[in-house]
Amino acid sequence: MTPTLADVRAAAERIQPYAHRTPTLTNASLNQKTGAQVFLKCENLQKVGAFKFRGACNATYALSEEKAARGVCTHSSGNHAQALALAARMRGIPAYIVMPGNAPTVKKNAVAGYGGLITFCEPTLAARESALEAIRRETGAAVVHPYNDERVIAGQGTAALELLADVPDLDVIIVPVGGGGLLSGTALAATALKKGIRVIAGEPEMADDAFRSMQAGEIVASVNPKTIADGLLTSLGTLTFPIIQEHVEQIVTVSEAGIVETMKYIWERAKIIIEPSSAVAVGVLWEQKINLRGLKVGIILSGGNVDLEKLPWQTSRAA
Amino acid sequence: MTPTLADVRAAAERIQPYAHRTPTLTNASLNQKTGAQVFLKCENLQKVGAFKFRGACNATYALSEEKAARGVCTHSSGNHAQALALAARMRGIPAYIVMPGNAPTVKKNAVAGYGGLITFCEPTLAARESALEAIRRETGAAVVHPYNDERVIAGQGTAALELLADVPDLDVIIVPVGGGGLLSGTALAATALKKGIRVIAGEPEMADDAFRSMQAGEIVASVNPKTIADGLLTSLGTLTFPIIQEHVEQIVTVSEAGIVETMKYIWERAKIIIEPSSAVAVGVLWEQKINLRGLKVGIILSGGNVDLEKLPWQTSRAA
Repeated sequence: MTPTLADVRAAAERIQPYAHRTPTLTNASLNQKTGAQVFLKCENLQKVGAFKFRGACNATYALSEEKAARGVCTHSSGNHAQALALAARMRGIPAYIVMPGNAPTVKKNAVAGYGGLITFCEPTLAARESALEAIRRETGAAVVHPYNDERVIAGQGTAALELLADVPDLDVIIVPVGGGGLLSGTALAATALKKGIRVIAGEPEMADDAFRSMQAGEIVASVNPKTIADGLLTSLGTLTFPIIQEHVEQIVTVSEAGIVETMKYIWERAKIIIEPSSAVAVGVLWEQKINLRGLKVGIILSGGNVDLEKLPWQTSRAA
Repeated sequence: MTPTLADVRAAAERIQPYAHRTPTLTNASLNQKTGAQVFLKCENLQKVGAFKFRGACNATYALSEEKAARGVCTHSSGNHAQALALAARMRGIPAYIVMPGNAPTVKKNAVAGYGGLITFCEPTLAARESALEAIRRETGAAVVHPYNDERVIAGQGTAALELLADVPDLDVIIVPVGGGGLLSGTALAATALKKGIRVIAGEPEMADDAFRSMQAGEIVASVNPKTIADGLLTSLGTLTFPIIQEHVEQIVTVSEAGIVETMKYIWERAKIIIEPSSAVAVGVLWEQKINLRGLKVGIILSGGNVDLEKLPWQTSRAA
C-alpha cells in the first residue's frame, strides 16, 4: 500500500530516539552563485552518513517483537546495508546482508563494523536474490528492500518533515533519485504538508533511467549506467514510481562534470563532506537547466560516504 | 580591560544578525573511540569557515558610526583577514588588510573576494606592523588585532555560550590555542557560566609556546614553529595570557601524526571538513595523554579552511 503522511509521521516518532535530527545549513556563497535561497538538509550528517538510516530504522523498529527476533535481511553493498546493520544492532537483532564478493573492502568492513552478518555471492542480481531468498527461508528474517518497501519510503520521508519544520515556506525541494525511496518519501510528505510545493529530482545524465521513465510513463530499467554518483545506479521500484509520477514535478539531469564541480564547491564553501549522489541534487541549481532564481529551495543532501584517498578532482587530474 | 561574561553576552546579541548559530554535533564512533561523550561545536560551519568571524564581527559592529566610517584594518594572512573583510562589507565600511606578498594566492583571493582592500608588504613582522601603522595614520581606520583585543576576545567567547546552551552539563571544553583569542574568550565565558567546568587547550607539540608560557608563568614567544596546524603559529597576547592563566586548567600538546590522524577521522566519520587547527583540539581526546573517559566533553572546532588539492594524508604518502 502506498504510504501516507500519517505513515511518515509515525515513522518520525518511531525513529526519533535513534536517528540524528540533522541540521539545515545555509551558505551565502551558494545563494549568490545560484541566485536562489538555498537550505541544505544535511543527511550526510545522519547516522551511517546517509538518509538511508531513516528508512532502515523505521522498517526495523516497525516489526513486531516476534517477527523482529528472527532478524532482518537485505542485499545491498551500499549505504542501505550499513544502515540496516546499525538499526538491527540497536534493536538487538541479527542483520543478514548479502553482498557481492567483489564489493570494495571499505564497504565490507563498514557493514561488518556495524555488526552485519555478511554472506558473499557472485556479483549478479540473480545470485544476490537467490542468496537472499535462501537466508530468508533458513532464518525467517524480514526482507528490507533498499527502497521498494513502504516502511522504508515512509522513513525516508521524515527528512522532509524536519526540513519543512525548519523552513516552512520553501518553494521547492530537490533530492537525488536512484531507486526513488528518498524521492517518493519526500514527495508524498512535502506535497501533503504544503500545497503547491514543487518537488524536483536530480539525476545523473549518465544514469537517466528515472528521467526516461517519467517520459515513457513506465519504469525504464537502468542498464549498465556509468556515473560517479554510485548511489544512483538502480532502477525505480514498482512502489516508488507511481508516487513519483503523481507528486514529482520533473526530473532534471546533471552532467558528470557538474557533479564533480558541485561536490567540490560544497566541500570548499559549506565545509561539509557530501558524496557525488548529493552533489547531483545541488547540481540541478548549479547547472541552471531550469530557472529557480529567487526561490526558497530546500535540498536534501543524501549522504557523505566518500573514499578520502580517491577524490574525483584528483582522479580526474591524474587521468 | 579584561572582558567579562557581560561583554560576551553583549557580543552575542551584537553579532546575532550576522553570524551563523552553528550546530553542535555528536558522533557515536568518536564517543566509542575516545571513551568520552563528545559534542562538536562546528565553527568550521561559521561564516568564512572559522570562529574568527565572531570576534571580527563584534569588533566591527562595536564601533561608533563615526569611527566605523573610517573603516577597520589589520595585518593577517589567515582567517581573521577574511573575517574582518566580510564583517566590514556587511557594515558597509572599508577593511584594509596588510598581507605579506608571498601569502598563498588562495588566501589573497579569499580576502579580495570578501571586498578587503589588500596592501602587500615584505614577509616580516616589522614590515607588516609599519605598513599597518601607515594605513591607520592615513585612513583613521580602527585596528582590529586578530586576538589581542577585548572586543575580539568577547566575540570569540560567544561560541561557548551557544555550546553551553546546547549542552548545559558539560564537564570539559577543549579548544585549540594559537594567540589565545578563542581560548581566553571560551575560558572566561564558560567558567563564569558554569562553576567548576574545566577548560583545556590543545596545542601542537611543534608549536608549544603556550604550554611553555603556562609553565614559565610568562609569555614565551613562538619562534619559527613548524606544524601543519598553520592557524596556531602565533604567540599568546598580553590580553589573552592572563585570562588563560586564571581560567584554563592546562594545555595539552598533540603530535603532528595525531593531528593528521584525527583530522582524517573527523572527515571520515563526522562528514565535516575541519582544518588541522581544529584537529588539535580533538587530538587531546585522541591521544589520551590526559584521562577524560566518561566525561561530557565539548570541543570547539575552530575552522574548516583547507586546500582540497593538498590534503595531508596524500602529501605525506607522496613524501
